[in-house]
Amino acid sequence: MIDPQRYPRLSRIQVPADLREFPEQELPAIADELRAYLIEQVAQSGGHFGAGLGVIELTVALHWLYDTPTDRLVWDVGHQTYPHKILTGRRDVIQTVKQKDGVSPFPKRGESEFDTFGVGHSSTSISAALGMALALQRAGDERKVVAVIGDGAITGGMAFEALAHGGGMGDEPDGIEPNLLVILNDNQMSISENVGGVTRMLGRLTGSRTLNALREGGKKLLGDKNRPAAKFVKRWEEQWKGMFVPSTMFEELGFHYTGPIDGHDMEALVGIMKTLQGMKGPQLLHIITTKGKGYERAEGDQIGYHAVGPFNPELGMVSKAGAKKVTYTDVFGDWICDMAAADDKLMGITPAMREGSGLVRFSKEYPQRYFDVAIAEQHAVTLAAGMACEGAKPVVAIYSTFLQRGYDQLVHDVALQELDVLFAIDRGGVVGPDGATHAGNLDLSYLRCVPNMVVMAPADENECRQMLSTGFRFNGPAAVRYPRGSGPGVAVQSSLDVLQIGKAQLRRRGSRIALLAFGSLLPAAEEVGEALGLTVVNMRFVKPLDRALILHLAADHEGFVTLEDNVVAGGAGSGVAELLAAEGLSVSMLHLGLPDAFQPHGSREELLAEAGLDVAGIRAAIVQRWHDIDSAPPRTAAI
Amino acid sequence: MIDPQRYPRLSRIQVPADLREFPEQELPAIADELRAYLIEQVAQSGGHFGAGLGVIELTVALHWLYDTPTDRLVWDVGHQTYPHKILTGRRDVIQTVKQKDGVSPFPKRGESEFDTFGVGHSSTSISAALGMALALQRAGDERKVVAVIGDGAITGGMAFEALAHGGGMGDEPDGIEPNLLVILNDNQMSISENVGGVTRMLGRLTGSRTLNALREGGKKLLGDKNRPAAKFVKRWEEQWKGMFVPSTMFEELGFHYTGPIDGHDMEALVGIMKTLQGMKGPQLLHIITTKGKGYERAEGDQIGYHAVGPFNPELGMVSKAGAKKVTYTDVFGDWICDMAAADDKLMGITPAMREGSGLVRFSKEYPQRYFDVAIAEQHAVTLAAGMACEGAKPVVAIYSTFLQRGYDQLVHDVALQELDVLFAIDRGGVVGPDGATHAGNLDLSYLRCVPNMVVMAPADENECRQMLSTGFRFNGPAAVRYPRGSGPGVAVQSSLDVLQIGKAQLRRRGSRIALLAFGSLLPAAEEVGEALGLTVVNMRFVKPLDRALILHLAADHEGFVTLEDNVVAGGAGSGVAELLAAEGLSVSMLHLGLPDAFQPHGSREELLAEAGLDVAGIRAAIVQRWHDIDSAPPRTAAI
Repeated sequence: MIDPQRYPRLSRIQVPADLREFPEQELPAIADELRAYLIEQVAQSGGHFGAGLGVIELTVALHWLYDTPTDRLVWDVGHQTYPHKILTGRRDVIQTVKQKDGVSPFPKRGESEFDTFGVGHSSTSISAALGMALALQRAGDERKVVAVIGDGAITGGMAFEALAHGGGMGDEPDGIEPNLLVILNDNQMSISENVGGVTRMLGRLTGSRTLNALREGGKKLLGDKNRPAAKFVKRWEEQWKGMFVPSTMFEELGFHYTGPIDGHDMEALVGIMKTLQGMKGPQLLHIITTKGKGYERAEGDQIGYHAVGPFNPELGMVSKAGAKKVTYTDVFGDWICDMAAADDKLMGITPAMREGSGLVRFSKEYPQRYFDVAIAEQHAVTLAAGMACEGAKPVVAIYSTFLQRGYDQLVHDVALQELDVLFAIDRGGVVGPDGATHAGNLDLSYLRCVPNMVVMAPADENECRQMLSTGFRFNGPAAVRYPRGSGPGVAVQSSLDVLQIGKAQLRRRGSRIALLAFGSLLPAAEEVGEALGLTVVNMRFVKPLDRALILHLAADHEGFVTLEDNVVAGGAGSGVAELLAAEGLSVSMLHLGLPDAFQPHGSREELLAEAGLDVAGIRAAIVQRWHDIDSAPPRTAAI
Repeated sequence: MIDPQRYPRLSRIQVPADLREFPEQELPAIADELRAYLIEQVAQSGGHFGAGLGVIELTVALHWLYDTPTDRLVWDVGHQTYPHKILTGRRDVIQTVKQKDGVSPFPKRGESEFDTFGVGHSSTSISAALGMALALQRAGDERKVVAVIGDGAITGGMAFEALAHGGGMGDEPDGIEPNLLVILNDNQMSISENVGGVTRMLGRLTGSRTLNALREGGKKLLGDKNRPAAKFVKRWEEQWKGMFVPSTMFEELGFHYTGPIDGHDMEALVGIMKTLQGMKGPQLLHIITTKGKGYERAEGDQIGYHAVGPFNPELGMVSKAGAKKVTYTDVFGDWICDMAAADDKLMGITPAMREGSGLVRFSKEYPQRYFDVAIAEQHAVTLAAGMACEGAKPVVAIYSTFLQRGYDQLVHDVALQELDVLFAIDRGGVVGPDGATHAGNLDLSYLRCVPNMVVMAPADENECRQMLSTGFRFNGPAAVRYPRGSGPGVAVQSSLDVLQIGKAQLRRRGSRIALLAFGSLLPAAEEVGEALGLTVVNMRFVKPLDRALILHLAADHEGFVTLEDNVVAGGAGSGVAELLAAEGLSVSMLHLGLPDAFQPHGSREELLAEAGLDVAGIRAAIVQRWHDIDSAPPRTAAI
């Protein structure tokens, strides 16, 4: 429980209504307590850290000024919502964040009425908030809607689409402007440093202090724009700004722009937001904050403290001594450097995930062949297609869940044109603590139906490297999809050897039942196969399948068990069934994979076990189908 | 063959090298011939019309100034490329456009080396061209890259992503600016009128003539920005513009902006483009053109003449007398008006496809509940999610192929949150003349794997209406996916009755084999079932499946034939097989659907027949699998 001695104010705040009992002058002290409490709690639990520290004042100001949850508050991405969660009923359970059955690391509608929109992927908040504002306006409901979006998230194309839609509505015949406040939380960071033209643009705005003073002068005269006097001032202001002050993209699109202001200055923040509360139409408030604000180590290492494991607040994070287990991300990071050395046509592309995708070393060693396109998945994929047209060999490093953002581009710009692009898909299958928005449970299904694609799933670290080389050397679109975290611990060779496309690996010759494992479930399949005397195949290729081997096994097995950490619906196992059906063969099939449901957050192991994809679950499913298999014939030897 | 009397210059131009033999002063005359030839040819063949007429001068200027195909010319969307095709080797076959084995209606890499990037969906050109420019630059290749994008296409978020990436590269440490010219072809139109903040922004630019004069004055002083004197001027210009001239979004993002200029003034166009050819870094040239330019009727009816059937150039398009066959689009258009009258929570959303999606009447009758969000599929879906959060009942009207652009939003913002959004998916399955980029062949696969979705496919017009009502009344995410064009001609009732979720319709009780038809293939299935004495089911629901009926039929049929106009991979038929496998049942399966390949353009009927999905093909496939079925038991009666 919270200590009322250390947190005299925060201990009295369960929900925002409690916060609103405090007078304005106490808000800075409340912010200080909230910041201290967040540091204390996340140091115990781990979780997203820097982003939350950056919006302490904003969070307090918003819940104090607005009548939440009646008024709607939409947070983009959600890394920054731990302070929001603490103020909205989850103060005493925040340290369970990311744990199974604990607080979700992102806003989640089912968790709280204060979480108005579930997020996880970036750049959705303006669209969602605009939708809310329009629905409320059309229903004659006066409640207010506020979206908070970072300068990283605003680089995503859909944020631009939403700004353009919301900003332009007043210009249409009989158009009604939506009432919406967008707060641009500019901390010059996404998870990595921000890059690109948006950063350039915002930097220019932030730099123009004189102009902002002029601008603010104009605003004070403004007041309610519907009063006749205000209308005159507004017209004058527009004229005047057009002559002297650089307009912002936001104004060009039809938003009324205010800022930039210091997002840690509570008085300024509350003052300006009070004014904006009285204004109609689409508003954009630009605030400048510091990621990690108030915890020196986090301010000094904003990337490192974006998300943390448990740590001692006095000492900060300590690098663990001893050997760290090699992750699939590490395997990719080494491979891309080695392949870049071997082939100067290789280009590496990431949509703002340099650290997460393992591209730090590549970005340093090959800066001219490294492209961080910002949060821009659609562009990332088509950029690669364009490069491939000119003979370059692009590698798009992307998380499974984010590739959903570039799906159309993968289908039309890459696969349809049979361009030589390799997708290195990290976080395929069950991801775990970040919850459903970060799960990679669908990729084998949505990739397998796309013509011309080669789709691979490695069973171990070394095979991952081989598959990356295979996809890279294959002259056409290919994808290697590997899981989060570490694999079984197979040593990774330094060669850049390739596998034969569409060739599976028979791991164990048994009888009656063949276990066909796609990717990371192979070790579990081998253990079960060994125990029950079954055939085990490392399928390797989701597409194309090893037709010859499948037909061969169909001839002398009574059943096939397919295994994958992807939803069963349309997954790799269904591909095997389709192949058999096309051949007119009937083999008893058991498809083991993920359920037709979004999985909550939890560890990868917990979620796999819950889906019956651990050794015990796989064995139980097989025995349930073939009751007599547990008293099986004598074990046959491994190959 | 082209008539050298009427086309003395164009008849001598087979490829751009021939064009480049002409002196500059002849270019206007060549443009006139090209325009006349385009009108003559498209009047015979039908096809995209207005967009091509708008870029006649631009097309001539580009191929005259640039060394195509060595220099790279990337057209966005591609509706406007018939003049380009005429000048690049396809003059004498242009009238075969859209026909099977004829010229593709869009740029296509396989068709010509002058078609550098295949398109069909909008907003990809800047990404692709930037990818080309970067690949060439890294390889030390000096060839030039030009992208041509319309003001409609530039509203798509990925165009913004590409501008921000390309514009910001020079700001990075050791950053090298890409050499790229983006031509913004501003005709104030997409297929419909443009809407939104981008239109507002461009209108403001176009209106500021004085400022543009100042701007151009500055540019003339500029020259090569790397000369020391020019650097001074550049700095001065930036300072000066910052004080007096509103900057454009393009400049804020890092592009050097020129314009707007009259895109039909050949002399101005060639003059400015010559200057830009000598400049380094990312350039944006803003030209103003008229869609349909030079054909009065098309200028006066830009939406009607966007794409046309064959017509008499003297008379223009004539409305055909008599009853027009009702299309699925019509069914949707009537339904949404009727349901809007019955339920004031209904909101209709389209990403810039008012006409194509059948929303013209709805937009007039319910302007406050109609939202054209511009070409912005990602935003369209999340906007709907936001509306649903506040109790509105949004209907997203979208083509199957364009929903691929909003896939992540459908998964996370709608399905994961179980929000009450209806997707009315037009052009599902085989689409036809527009080719692979417009095919809806994948949607059942990529939708079926998403948890929480209800997915329906109607077999006739009235069922389409019933399914729309069903999806609308269902409190959660639902999709109705219907084909292009007209159905079997079933009369559409005026009621807003709903179907039972997950309930199939047994159409015919036969023996041995059950044909399970999803959607539009039902009539063919019934004909085959009748002929061969087989059971026929109208499945209606791709998800959830009618489990009870499937198990019931599995008990007394030796085989199931699934039919769908979707790829077999992961499609509806695979769902049936998965269900049987989960039940431990082995039924001999035959999945009839589309091949694992991108289909070329052709009529819907031709493409279905080619895929074996007409009556003859279905029958042949069944008989091939079950040889003795042709001498089947006596026909059983229809139910």
